[in-house]
Amino acid sequence: MKKQLGPLDLLFPAPVMLVVSGIGDNANIMTVVWGSIVSGKPPTIGIAVHKNRYSLQLIRENKEFTVNIPSKDIVSQADYCGLVSGNKTNKFMDTGLTAIDGSIVKTPLIKECPYNMECKVTQEVEVGDWILVLGEIVETYLDENKLVQPKRISPDYAQIQPLSYFGNAREYRSIGEKCGEAFSIGKSIKR
Amino acid sequence: MKKQLGPLDLLFPAPVMLVVSGIGDNANIMTVVWGSIVSGKPPTIGIAVHKNRYSLQLIRENKEFTVNIPSKDIVSQADYCGLVSGNKTNKFMDTGLTAIDGSIVKTPLIKECPYNMECKVTQEVEVGDWILVLGEIVETYLDENKLVQPKRISPDYAQIQPLSYFGNAREYRSIGEKCGEAFSIGKSIKR
Repeated sequence: MKKQLGPLDLLFPAPVMLVVSGIGDNANIMTVVWGSIVSGKPPTIGIAVHKNRYSLQLIRENKEFTVNIPSKDIVSQADYCGLVSGNKTNKFMDTGLTAIDGSIVKTPLIKECPYNMECKVTQEVEVGDWILVLGEIVETYLDENKLVQPKRISPDYAQIQPLSYFGNAREYRSIGEKCGEAFSIGKSIKR
Repeated sequence: MKKQLGPLDLLFPAPVMLVVSGIGDNANIMTVVWGSIVSGKPPTIGIAVHKNRYSLQLIRENKEFTVNIPSKDIVSQADYCGLVSGNKTNKFMDTGLTAIDGSIVKTPLIKECPYNMECKVTQEVEVGDWILVLGEIVETYLDENKLVQPKRISPDYAQIQPLSYFGNAREYRSIGEKCGEAFSIGKSIKR
């Protein structure tokens, strides 16, 4: 039996992202869990940002942002960046996270995050009280010692230990066991 | 040290979703891992669908779709629905998954998926070769025995065992350990 829960804004798991906007001393960190790749060609990410967010101003000023994937080691810092506004405090100073230069955009990356993306804003889509910011992914970075190359270049996820977010219960969770290879395990089923 | 990987379409973890489109005997299942909530008010989901996908035709015809979250028990069926086109076969018949009626849209839900969303298309956004389909979430369903209500109504994630997708390595993974409470664990950090 299924229970109707009403119209919830709930999808799981969600990726935990630290989105940096702003340049130099103005750089700010915002925690975002509503986002996804939205195109493979050109590679594009979409992040949903509430209209009132301070980071939205900074993204609009510079037309760029970076997405940084925290490991579970920095779950407290990741959560903190969703609790306070960059309008009132410097979250790099508060958390001790380190801003480092990328190569294409001026907005910094977060050194402690094992995977980073540089993004240039290409579109904004208004959806109710949120702005869906679309950014072309112009470069990505991975900690050098966290790369595997079995068949194709890939992060070593077990080593990276990225966070997942599960809404309503408000749980951050670490990576689970591998339970199948995509584009492969389904071949056991015949038409 | 960080290694530049180039402009990748890679964000992790990604939710594994079975998107149903079409009505009655035409109902089709498509596996989607590029999607996210994009607005809380009104609750809206965005899913990225390649322009050439058969499901895009069905979504456009009916202006609705459902999103169904598979558990790891049906990882093979979930993968299968990403391997073949609904233009050539009936994936409900092939997989044995069961189409059941929702209450608002005519597109069916998948009974075996513990969490389901009914969605009405509100916008389409063209992003390169992909169409980002935005749908207002008009109803959600959860298996009755998989609900917890600690502080707020929530799915019991450990019981649901949803899948995560990790790109490039092409790994499906199950849920990991809880490693923090959101909007809480960050309070240990002071300005």
